[in-house]
Amino acid sequence: MLHSCYGINEKGHFTIGGVDTTVLANKYKTPLFVLDEQKIRENCRAYTSAMNKYFVDGSTIHYASKALSFKGIYKIMSEEGVNVDLCSLGEVYTAKSAGFDLSRACLHGNNKTDDNIREAIRAGVGEFVVDSFEELEALEIIAGEENVVQKAFVRITPNIDCHTLKAISTGQLDSKFGTPIETGQAEKLVRRALELKNVKLIGYHCHCGSQVFETQPYVNQTEIMFAFAADIMKKTGYAPEYMNLGGGFGVRYTENDPQIDIGENIRLIAEKEKEICKKYNLPEPKILMEPGRSIVANAGITLYTVGTVKHIEGYRTYVSINGGMTDNPRYALYGSKYEALLANKASLPKDTSVTIAGCCCESGDLIGENIKLQKAERGDLLAVTVTGAYNYSMSSNYNRVPRPALVIVNNGKDRLAIRRESYEDICRNDI
Amino acid sequence: MLHSCYGINEKGHFTIGGVDTTVLANKYKTPLFVLDEQKIRENCRAYTSAMNKYFVDGSTIHYASKALSFKGIYKIMSEEGVNVDLCSLGEVYTAKSAGFDLSRACLHGNNKTDDNIREAIRAGVGEFVVDSFEELEALEIIAGEENVVQKAFVRITPNIDCHTLKAISTGQLDSKFGTPIETGQAEKLVRRALELKNVKLIGYHCHCGSQVFETQPYVNQTEIMFAFAADIMKKTGYAPEYMNLGGGFGVRYTENDPQIDIGENIRLIAEKEKEICKKYNLPEPKILMEPGRSIVANAGITLYTVGTVKHIEGYRTYVSINGGMTDNPRYALYGSKYEALLANKASLPKDTSVTIAGCCCESGDLIGENIKLQKAERGDLLAVTVTGAYNYSMSSNYNRVPRPALVIVNNGKDRLAIRRESYEDICRNDI
Repeated sequence: MLHSCYGINEKGHFTIGGVDTTVLANKYKTPLFVLDEQKIRENCRAYTSAMNKYFVDGSTIHYASKALSFKGIYKIMSEEGVNVDLCSLGEVYTAKSAGFDLSRACLHGNNKTDDNIREAIRAGVGEFVVDSFEELEALEIIAGEENVVQKAFVRITPNIDCHTLKAISTGQLDSKFGTPIETGQAEKLVRRALELKNVKLIGYHCHCGSQVFETQPYVNQTEIMFAFAADIMKKTGYAPEYMNLGGGFGVRYTENDPQIDIGENIRLIAEKEKEICKKYNLPEPKILMEPGRSIVANAGITLYTVGTVKHIEGYRTYVSINGGMTDNPRYALYGSKYEALLANKASLPKDTSVTIAGCCCESGDLIGENIKLQKAERGDLLAVTVTGAYNYSMSSNYNRVPRPALVIVNNGKDRLAIRRESYEDICRNDI
Repeated sequence: MLHSCYGINEKGHFTIGGVDTTVLANKYKTPLFVLDEQKIRENCRAYTSAMNKYFVDGSTIHYASKALSFKGIYKIMSEEGVNVDLCSLGEVYTAKSAGFDLSRACLHGNNKTDDNIREAIRAGVGEFVVDSFEELEALEIIAGEENVVQKAFVRITPNIDCHTLKAISTGQLDSKFGTPIETGQAEKLVRRALELKNVKLIGYHCHCGSQVFETQPYVNQTEIMFAFAADIMKKTGYAPEYMNLGGGFGVRYTENDPQIDIGENIRLIAEKEKEICKKYNLPEPKILMEPGRSIVANAGITLYTVGTVKHIEGYRTYVSINGGMTDNPRYALYGSKYEALLANKASLPKDTSVTIAGCCCESGDLIGENIKLQKAERGDLLAVTVTGAYNYSMSSNYNRVPRPALVIVNNGKDRLAIRRESYEDICRNDI
C-alpha cells in the first residue's frame, strides 16, 4: 500500500483509516471522496514539529487550502494550530464560515481587485501576500480608507527551476506571480513598501512550484532570497521578520514516486538555511512554508462504481466508472498518474492492465491508462488512491454531473463533511 | 470581427447582438457570459434548412447540449424544433425542468449505469445511443421491467482519423466510445440488438470527433458506415431507418481558423452520401447530425474586468482578469486559442501583445499567450470572444471562485439566464 492509512481487512476489502470502503460506499453511495482525518493531522504535525525543532521560534506552516477547501478542513487546521493560506475571497468566506480565526490567515493571489482587498481587510485577514507594485499601491490606499495598518509580505520571484510541470511551476522569472529580482523590480517594490504608512512589511514570500520532491530547489531558493534580503538590508537597513519559502514537498501518487520524509527534508533545508544566513550576516528570520498537497493528498481516496467493462479485442480494456474528469481533472489537465484497485476484491492479484474511463462524453476523460487492476466487472467498487488534493477542489459539473459527497473517517468512525450535489443544486441558478 | 454578431458602436464600445457590452458589465457585473440568441437560432437554421434540403425527409440535427447546458438553451431548441442529445441524467433533468419534450431527446454515454437507464426510460427519453454490448443487455432487461420498447441506435466506431485533438477525437477504433467494426464486435452487437424484444434498433450512430473543419472525415465515415450497413443488410436483411453521423463542423475561434459555410458543407456531404448509398444499393436513411459547439460557440463571449497589469521588463506583460480557468479551462486543458479585446476601447488599435492570466493560484491558469490587445489598464473591460461552448459547461469552483452569471441578448434586449453563483452556493453542501 502506498500510504499507512490504506489497508485490506479480513474480508479482503480495501480500508482507509481502518474503515471498510465497501461499507462507506453502501452507506453514502458512489462516487464518494473519503478523507482520513488522522492522516491529515499526522501530515500537519510532521511539518510543524520539524519547523519548531529546526528553525527559529515562530516558524510554522500555512496550509495552502486551494488544495482542498471546504468548511471541515479549516476546523481541523484550527484544532491543529495550523495557519492557512487563502487565495480568494471564496476561500476567505469558507474559512470564516467554519469559524477559523482569520488573523491566522494570509491572502494570496495575482489579481486582487480593489473590492477583494477591501473585503479581505474587513474580514480581518492577518496578512496579505502582495504580488505586484500595482497591488501594493491599491493596498496602501484601501488600508488607509479602512483605518488599518495591514501586515504584508511581498512576493518575489527567485527565478529558479524546480523540475516540475510548467502549469504548477511558479518560481521562474517569467511568471504571472510575484515580482522578479533580476529586473530590479523586486527592490523597487520593497523600497516602496517600506515608505508606506498603511502597509507594514513583515517579510518576503517566494514559491518555486508544486510537487517538488528534492530539497535542492528550496536550498537554491533560500540562497537567492537571503542574498536579496542581505542586499536590501545593506541598502535600507530592513531585515525581514519572516521568510516564507512557499510550497511543501512532493506526494507519492504511485509506487514510482519516492516517499518523502518531511521532517528530514526540513532538517536538511534548515541546516543550509543557517549556513546561508551566517554567510550573509542576516538575523535569522522566522521561516514559513505553505504545504497544501502534502497535507491532504495521501489522506484521500475516491470510490467509484464500475459500469461498462469494454474489451476491444487486440487493443485494450476500458473500465468505465460513474465519475471521472468532473471529480478528478488531473489526468486531463496534466496527464497525472494514479493507482487504483477494486475495493471489494482488494486481496486478489492485480492481473489486468486497463484504461479507467470517466463517464463524460469526452475522449480525454480518463483517470489513467495501463493501470494494474484486479479483474473488473459491472458493479465492482473501484478506489483511486491519493486523491485528497486538487480533486474535489478542481471538480466541475461538466456534462451536468453532480459533485460527489465527501466523508471523513476518524478512528474507525465516519461522518459526512460535504453533501452530495443534487440535480436541483446544479439547476439552482438557471432561470 | 470574427463573427457577424460582434460589433463596435459609435462610442467605440464592443457590442454583441447590437448590445453595448460595457452596459451589460455595469448592469450584471463581471465576469459575465453573454450569449446572442439570434446567432444561436441562425446557427440552428443553417443546419436544419440544409439537412431538409439535401437529405431525405426526417433528416435533422440533435443539439449536443454538453457544449452548453442550462434550462434556457433547451427552451430555444424547443422553439427552433431542434432535437437534443443528452449525455447524462443531469442533462436529462435540466432539459425536463425546462419543459423540453424528452421524446425528442437521445441519451448518450459510455457508462450508463442500470439506475441511469431506468431513470432515463421513466423520464421518457426518446432514444438511447447504445454504446456497448453490456449496455444493450442491461437496456433489454430494464426496458422489459419498465414495460417499454425502447428505441435505440447502436454506436459504431468507424476507425477514422479526423485530424483533431486526441482529447476530442472519438472515431478511432481504440476508443472508450462505441463498438468497433474491424474486430467484428459491431456486427455481433447489431445481430444481438435485432434479436431483442424490448429494444427497437432504429439505426446506427458514429462520431469522428469535435472541431472538424473539413467534409472529408464525414465522407470517409459515411463510406465506412454505409459499407457496414450494406454488409449487415446482406447478412440479416436489416436496413437502418437512421444514420447518425454525429458531430458538427469546426468553429472559427481566431482569424487563423476558416469560416465554415454549414449549408455548403452539408450539400457536399449529401452529394457523396447519395453516391455511396447508390453504390451499396442501400435505401437512403434519414441522416442525423449532432452539432453542439457550432450552435453556441460563436454566439458567446465572456466579459472580465482587468486587474493587475504586470510588465516584466524584457519578458512580457501579464494582464490579469477576475476569471480564468475556472470559467474557461480550455487553454489549460488543450492549449486552445482565443482572441480578446478591450470592450471599452474597442475602436483603438490592438498595439500590444500580452498574456491574459486568470486569477487562480496556478501558473497554467491563462486564457492565452501572445494575444493582441489594446493597451490595458486596471479597470478596463476585457472581452474574450467565441466562448459559448465548453466554457460555462466545463466551469469549476477551483480556488472557491464562483461561476459567472450568463445573460442572453436578443434583438437589443438583455435578460439574465443563469444567476451568478454566490459564496453561499459554494458552501451550501459543506457541513
